[in-house]
Amino acid sequence: MKLIRFGEAGEEKPGVELEDGMRLDVSGFGADYDDDFFGKGGIHKLEAWLKSNKSSCEVIPPDIRLGPPVKKPSKLICIGLNYAKHAEESGATIPDEPVIFFKATSAIVGPNDKLIIPKGSQKTDWEVELAIVIEKKANYVSKDEAMDYVAGYVLHNDYSEREFQLERSGQWVKGKSCDTFAPLGPYLITKDEISDPQNLGLWLKLNGEIKQQSNTNDMVFGISEIVSYLSQFMSLMPGDIISTGTPFGVGMGLKPQRYIKPGDTIELGIEGLGASKQHAVAWEDFS
Amino acid sequence: MKLIRFGEAGEEKPGVELEDGMRLDVSGFGADYDDDFFGKGGIHKLEAWLKSNKSSCEVIPPDIRLGPPVKKPSKLICIGLNYAKHAEESGATIPDEPVIFFKATSAIVGPNDKLIIPKGSQKTDWEVELAIVIEKKANYVSKDEAMDYVAGYVLHNDYSEREFQLERSGQWVKGKSCDTFAPLGPYLITKDEISDPQNLGLWLKLNGEIKQQSNTNDMVFGISEIVSYLSQFMSLMPGDIISTGTPFGVGMGLKPQRYIKPGDTIELGIEGLGASKQHAVAWEDFS
Repeated sequence: MKLIRFGEAGEEKPGVELEDGMRLDVSGFGADYDDDFFGKGGIHKLEAWLKSNKSSCEVIPPDIRLGPPVKKPSKLICIGLNYAKHAEESGATIPDEPVIFFKATSAIVGPNDKLIIPKGSQKTDWEVELAIVIEKKANYVSKDEAMDYVAGYVLHNDYSEREFQLERSGQWVKGKSCDTFAPLGPYLITKDEISDPQNLGLWLKLNGEIKQQSNTNDMVFGISEIVSYLSQFMSLMPGDIISTGTPFGVGMGLKPQRYIKPGDTIELGIEGLGASKQHAVAWEDFS
Repeated sequence: MKLIRFGEAGEEKPGVELEDGMRLDVSGFGADYDDDFFGKGGIHKLEAWLKSNKSSCEVIPPDIRLGPPVKKPSKLICIGLNYAKHAEESGATIPDEPVIFFKATSAIVGPNDKLIIPKGSQKTDWEVELAIVIEKKANYVSKDEAMDYVAGYVLHNDYSEREFQLERSGQWVKGKSCDTFAPLGPYLITKDEISDPQNLGLWLKLNGEIKQQSNTNDMVFGISEIVSYLSQFMSLMPGDIISTGTPFGVGMGLKPQRYIKPGDTIELGIEGLGASKQHAVAWEDFS
């Protein structure tokens, strides 16, 4: 199943995207895609509900805005330096164990919303990533059990301001949390529909030119290992998002370095997870 | 006003603590202390409601469990190395600008809940801190405007696993986010009741012996500066918690170092913000 949320920012309704691309409003099911939905078996209940109610669901016009497919997750956790060649381009070594950082959940927007370049930013950069959505509370789970706790996958662009992240004292969160820095979607695809999440092509284009192109089989730490590892340090909650790192080809790694300017267009995608597109605007023009 | 939440974990109800220490159930007001409450002027509305409804509110028995006084904040942001002598004991220099890190909101518990020492932990440490609660969305606010965005203050123990934080690759969040590592409360005290938040004594005792004793006038970056600074990097949302750093006297800084063991009791307090008490238990005994 492909879960979407649609409508004005902050007032999204839940929907599904069918195999033929048609999108249905499933407000009638009576629940949005939040922690409660995932934690109480909402995916399976919705699937069953759809079987008898599909024909009465309204079709969503194709040009309607998409929101992030999860409502108010409690955490947006990211894994750093999780593709070998990206660690290299960042001037870092491959870590012995996963590097964890957080992004503010206030950075989350819809997949095709504008990217706002923050006030004073000179080094806003892109990062295509496969993100996992947690289905049920995970605490000290083994690698073998880890997939039982995963609801599905979602495309994420982990926008990063490199000066804020690396040159402004302390921890990376400072360059990862600006508003609009976490476009999620177009949809959450449930795990049953992706036979091997560790063998998916992923790509990112800047103004139509390929900048990142890799495969999730290049991850240093795979999805099961990441979920198990994280669950040793914190409880993963229903709806939590875990972004699994970006491959080679970010702006910081190019020679010369290339950062995002107002007017740039960033497109990205992952096999099976769909594509998204953000148009960059200056903070001054947006506010 | 002093806002409390009481009852079983996950099922807390809102209440207030009066000047004489009596606690009233204010469920009748119709809102819990979440982002919506703070963002929509809930503090002033509740104050007005109480004037005509106080006598019909039920009194809460004194032995009832207290929960965290804010329901599901979107972020728990912390400032690192914000007292000069603590930076020194940590072997760090005083930062030029605030050091930011996040704790997982799943670490938040009530003020007197048990501290669970995580599986495999050897270095669980204490940190008494004054935390701010945000009242309305803050984005690029100046230092002069910053206090307009603050709802009030709350006592926080920023428990930290030093091995997870400092010796396990990467960012501090790994040692800051374990379940029960963020006891908040006893209450949120609204800002009108604290005439000078930069002149409050704070203290922490381990098994009855003073370990931390300082004053918030020793902060490197004050509250207004912190709120203004953070709002340059992310939107601060209603209900968000910002913890302003800990003074000298953590276990890591002692000679020899002293970390928390099962059976230890930690008590802490801040002038005007009340006191809390946590009893440490091994993960194995809790689960």
